Amino acid sequence: MTVNFRSDNVTGIHPVILRAIEAANAGPALPYGNDEITARLEKRFAEVFETDLAVFPVATGTAANALSLATSTPPWGAVYCHAESHILLDECNAPEFYSAGARLVPLEGEHGRIAPATLEAALAAAPPGVHHAQPATVSITQLSECGTAYTPEHVAAIARIAHARGLVLHMDGSRFANALAGLSCKPAEATWRAGVDILSFGATKNGALAAEAIVVFRKDLAETLAFRRKRAGHLFSKMRFLSAQLEAYLADGLWLANARHANAQARALAKGLGALNGVSVIHPVDGNEVFAQMPAGLARAIAAAGFAMEPWSQPGGDPARPLQRLVTAFNTDPKHVDALLQAAKRRKAA
Amino acid sequence: MTVNFRSDNVTGIHPVILRAIEAANAGPALPYGNDEITARLEKRFAEVFETDLAVFPVATGTAANALSLATSTPPWGAVYCHAESHILLDECNAPEFYSAGARLVPLEGEHGRIAPATLEAALAAAPPGVHHAQPATVSITQLSECGTAYTPEHVAAIARIAHARGLVLHMDGSRFANALAGLSCKPAEATWRAGVDILSFGATKNGALAAEAIVVFRKDLAETLAFRRKRAGHLFSKMRFLSAQLEAYLADGLWLANARHANAQARALAKGLGALNGVSVIHPVDGNEVFAQMPAGLARAIAAAGFAMEPWSQPGGDPARPLQRLVTAFNTDPKHVDALLQAAKRRKAA
Amino acid sequence: MTVNFRSDNVTGIHPVILRAIEAANAGPALPYGNDEITARLEKRFAEVFETDLAVFPVATGTAANALSLATSTPPWGAVYCHAESHILLDECNAPEFYSAGARLVPLEGEHGRIAPATLEAALAAAPPGVHHAQPATVSITQLSECGTAYTPEHVAAIARIAHARGLVLHMDGSRFANALAGLSCKPAEATWRAGVDILSFGATKNGALAAEAIVVFRKDLAETLAFRRKRAGHLFSKMRFLSAQLEAYLADGLWLANARHANAQARALAKGLGALNGVSVIHPVDGNEVFAQMPAGLARAIAAAGFAMEPWSQPGGDPARPLQRLVTAFNTDPKHVDALLQAAKRRKAA
Amino acid sequence: MTVNFRSDNVTGIHPVILRAIEAANAGPALPYGNDEITARLEKRFAEVFETDLAVFPVATGTAANALSLATSTPPWGAVYCHAESHILLDECNAPEFYSAGARLVPLEGEHGRIAPATLEAALAAAPPGVHHAQPATVSITQLSECGTAYTPEHVAAIARIAHARGLVLHMDGSRFANALAGLSCKPAEATWRAGVDILSFGATKNGALAAEAIVVFRKDLAETLAFRRKRAGHLFSKMRFLSAQLEAYLADGLWLANARHANAQARALAKGLGALNGVSVIHPVDGNEVFAQMPAGLARAIAAAGFAMEPWSQPGGDPARPLQRLVTAFNTDPKHVDALLQAAKRRKAA
Repeated sequence: MTVNFRSDNVTGIHPVILRAIEAANAGPALPYGNDEITARLEKRFAEVFETDLAVFPVATGTAANALSLATSTPPWGAVYCHAESHILLDECNAPEFYSAGARLVPLEGEHGRIAPATLEAALAAAPPGVHHAQPATVSITQLSECGTAYTPEHVAAIARIAHARGLVLHMDGSRFANALAGLSCKPAEATWRAGVDILSFGATKNGALAAEAIVVFRKDLAETLAFRRKRAGHLFSKMRFLSAQLEAYLADGLWLANARHANAQARALAKGLGALNGVSVIHPVDGNEVFAQMPAGLARAIAAAGFAMEPWSQPGGDPARPLQRLVTAFNTDPKHVDALLQAAKRRKAA
Repeated sequence: MTVNFRSDNVTGIHPVILRAIEAANAGPALPYGNDEITARLEKRFAEVFETDLAVFPVATGTAANALSLATSTPPWGAVYCHAESHILLDECNAPEFYSAGARLVPLEGEHGRIAPATLEAALAAAPPGVHHAQPATVSITQLSECGTAYTPEHVAAIARIAHARGLVLHMDGSRFANALAGLSCKPAEATWRAGVDILSFGATKNGALAAEAIVVFRKDLAETLAFRRKRAGHLFSKMRFLSAQLEAYLADGLWLANARHANAQARALAKGLGALNGVSVIHPVDGNEVFAQMPAGLARAIAAAGFAMEPWSQPGGDPARPLQRLVTAFNTDPKHVDALLQAAKRRKAA
Repeated sequence: MTVNFRSDNVTGIHPVILRAIEAANAGPALPYGNDEITARLEKRFAEVFETDLAVFPVATGTAANALSLATSTPPWGAVYCHAESHILLDECNAPEFYSAGARLVPLEGEHGRIAPATLEAALAAAPPGVHHAQPATVSITQLSECGTAYTPEHVAAIARIAHARGLVLHMDGSRFANALAGLSCKPAEATWRAGVDILSFGATKNGALAAEAIVVFRKDLAETLAFRRKRAGHLFSKMRFLSAQLEAYLADGLWLANARHANAQARALAKGLGALNGVSVIHPVDGNEVFAQMPAGLARAIAAAGFAMEPWSQPGGDPARPLQRLVTAFNTDPKHVDALLQAAKRRKAA
Repeated sequence: MTVNFRSDNVTGIHPVILRAIEAANAGPALPYGNDEITARLEKRFAEVFETDLAVFPVATGTAANALSLATSTPPWGAVYCHAESHILLDECNAPEFYSAGARLVPLEGEHGRIAPATLEAALAAAPPGVHHAQPATVSITQLSECGTAYTPEHVAAIARIAHARGLVLHMDGSRFANALAGLSCKPAEATWRAGVDILSFGATKNGALAAEAIVVFRKDLAETLAFRRKRAGHLFSKMRFLSAQLEAYLADGLWLANARHANAQARALAKGLGALNGVSVIHPVDGNEVFAQMPAGLARAIAAAGFAMEPWSQPGGDPARPLQRLVTAFNTDPKHVDALLQAAKRRKAA
């Protein structure tokens, strides 16, 4: 049997969340979000984030991102994002679809993060006038695609630049819990207090069946979202089952406990692999992802021992030392981490 | 406590389907439909429909419909549908969104069904040429919005007209199981053998948490669907949980058993109500919906007795005899049907 | 040689307008509307309409209409228009394209005009909520597709209903000059004083090469129009040649003189034809269009005499008495009108 | 008075083309391209390009490009183009609008041209599968944005790579005549024989009022274009006036004569400026554009002498030696070229 470290989307449902779905199944409920669970969800998010906000549950991260970006970006607008961002590389033009033709502008940046100066320069170079896509939104990913987190100060620096030009700051928080657990800060500090206007709040990778929430801090951006969600077919008739997942996810700190567990396993992996000769962990491990460059032979040996890693594209990389991504999750067994590291050491010793 | 006869979307999850979700939760699985459950789903549908086909699970009926219509209708095309159809009245322009601007053309028709002659006349009146929306798709609803079913012969007559002009025939089967149970025919007879090219196969209303399937009989229409689904944010990472619902739904005839139960309750309601003075059941009850015109006082008495019906808009209707929709479901308690009828009779006797 | 009464779009360019194009060709000019002619155009329109406004020249009526509707209608919105309107029947889903998927809702109405009560009833029947297209715009056509004009009072009645619900009132003025000449009122009275918010001001049919203007009275609607026009490819680099047409069109009352001439010819046709036995002019002749029902033999005789009329679709019409549309134009020769009437009379006498 | 070398879009109409418009104004003509001039236009293009083809006149280059790209690129597709291309930088997301959300992928390349190896590498790096925008079209600009031409061999190398993957090759020929005149090859050699599938054939910059033609060599791509053009509002009712411009443009080699004149002036400018100390002409002058880096003082002196150049953005450029674009046109007066060079020399001597 293969032990999977390729992604956290191979995980199933956390038992507590599954039980919440079962509990929500007792009796009928009004459809389309008019049920009692959904009614109390917004209040729950407001408590967690310590502010007034609007919440729109959806089932996929792509839906959360594309709907968010469409609220803040006109068809002739541009979204500034990292060159490796999910919205740019992995959503099959969903942002363009939902926004009726907006443009994504890729920005380079170390460890998957956009440097404030890079954003500043890109916006300064964007010409005004009707001939050109007009900057409308900045989107950052928390955790980034390199497994790193933006500190609240970093977010705030990005936000200042964006807001100075009237742009909206969106955060793709597909792994927001992992980032938050790594930062050891409060949800508010990592988001609206630092200037985030709208957040794709992910739960699926961290234990839900399929549940994400669009969390809108700048509430004027929420005005059209209910219509956008419905016309995209993302308004569930049995909404209570989305809301129940999110409620259980937030209850008793489950989301952060899950994330802390995953992060600890990632740190253990990074520490163990990084101690081996010839292995480089190339990005800081701020959450549940480890990017390790290693001898091709070692990668094969780990695979042969039954552990799946994700070969990661690295333009200009050395084929003899391929890059591998390892992702841990809320249910990663520490014994599997140990076993992978033992297998790696055996190979090095051989 | 109110007993709900307003809609079948207030129901929860059938226990067998919930158990299938739990069973699918054992261990990791490849994401995005590369899991084993999804792998065997298409084969299962092919058996049920006795033909080669392609299947795309999604989570909402609006998604299934809008994606289906977008595969068959260019932006300058037109979809011919009933004037009361869900795609026209209840999906907030989702078909227009997914198709990048196609037009829905409403057709009148008795009991919620399009008469072949009406379709024929409408298509004959559609001018050719670049100035006008070009007919591309016919969409019929099974059960119709009036709770009636299209017989296979009726479908075939529609299909002949559509196909003669190169149009695609889509069936919105949000309550397909109820229609099929009422028709007592095989799935193949009600669909592709009669000329249906693409089917929105509903399961949510009949016992699933949130699961529908786009079933493509004319397989060339399936070529772009995987891309369309992804770019709309309707490709689930933990797809196995959609597929598990559909698999359980089809296993051991659960879908039809559920539908037969619901239909029997609807017939009982219709029989009981129809026997009362002043009550008219205005559409044939072919599935799980009853449309009953009744004295306003009776409607109030039924409500006062704790039974919720859906007041139904009826242009030109008599306010003294409002129209009510009653919908039964897989889990409707026959005792509740009896109780409603008893309450109605008491009122009449009073 | 055939004399054309089928449409006013078979006409060429009025000599004065052609000379204005030639005059504008003296020397270089800044592109994209930064030229001097365009600079003074908005002021000229403001004088003509006696109010502050914004003007966006484009080259086709479909562009003017689709851009106008897109500014006032969100993708989940609906445009209420006459069932025979050009935007609905003759623009190949352009409004849906430009609005990213809005819906057109057809309203019946005598002589091509929407009755206030019909609009009121339709809007009252439009359900609120995210499931349904939300009313956003009312579009009326001046001249209507039946050649009739809306009086200022009629427009005002429509506007009151629209504005009471927060809707925008658009006027498709493809033949606005003909309507105005027929009404004998001032441009302001027929438009913004009566409540029109945005006007597609046509010049092409009435003497331009290809020039229309989007005239925005409610200036907040103009904010996005420059971007919308550019991204649709309707911003001309040599804009001065559009502006020069419009300037010449408005100068010295050319537009109204042209319209008055055309209207007089139409009235002469209507009077002459209407006096013949068996001929019915079925709509008031408020502008330059005559709709005449006549014996099929007479229609053939007129055609045989060398006069082209447009056979007009009339659902339920009598094939023995087909409906013909005759359109006059700024350059219609009165002798041709006489000749047609003589030919018709000869036939009747025969 | 300022002499304009900023762009060729400040020019007016060539007298021969203006006379053709006047000639087309004699008498009525059928609308929407059913006139005689339009009827013979396709034949004329077929002669010029020595092959069967389809032609769609439109009025702007953005319309020609966006319509072309939309025919070859699905909404989930990608267009590979140069990082400085007009479709990417200067059309306000028109390609995204017309294609319903496709992606433009920028490629770097010397002198404004895409190197075959760069394209090959980019396509090889594009991952297959539903998560990612799928390569659909390659678009090259002839003249490029740096004033350079692609040789037929270069085009063929690009085409081989594109076609090997099933991609369509589009050429943005806004200055196609200038490129062709510079290449001294036949229209066929520069286009379909080298593998171009669809061409935006520009005439506006080279003497027309407003006329471009979409020339489709791979005729299956033409099937939907008539609908796409109409629904975008780019089908002119008085089409004959577009067609007359294009007919005159092609007649008696006017287009190439105009281009040769412009190119000769550009070469004279480049030669004269390049001979001055401190001036670098940084791109080959293959057509009518000169990019000259020059001391800021010299640039100011030229401006002071009454000659307008276009300051050109150059990331990382030296502010002391700004880059200037000079564009010549069909009507550039050689005396103005001499005068500019004299002014430049005077300044150097001073």
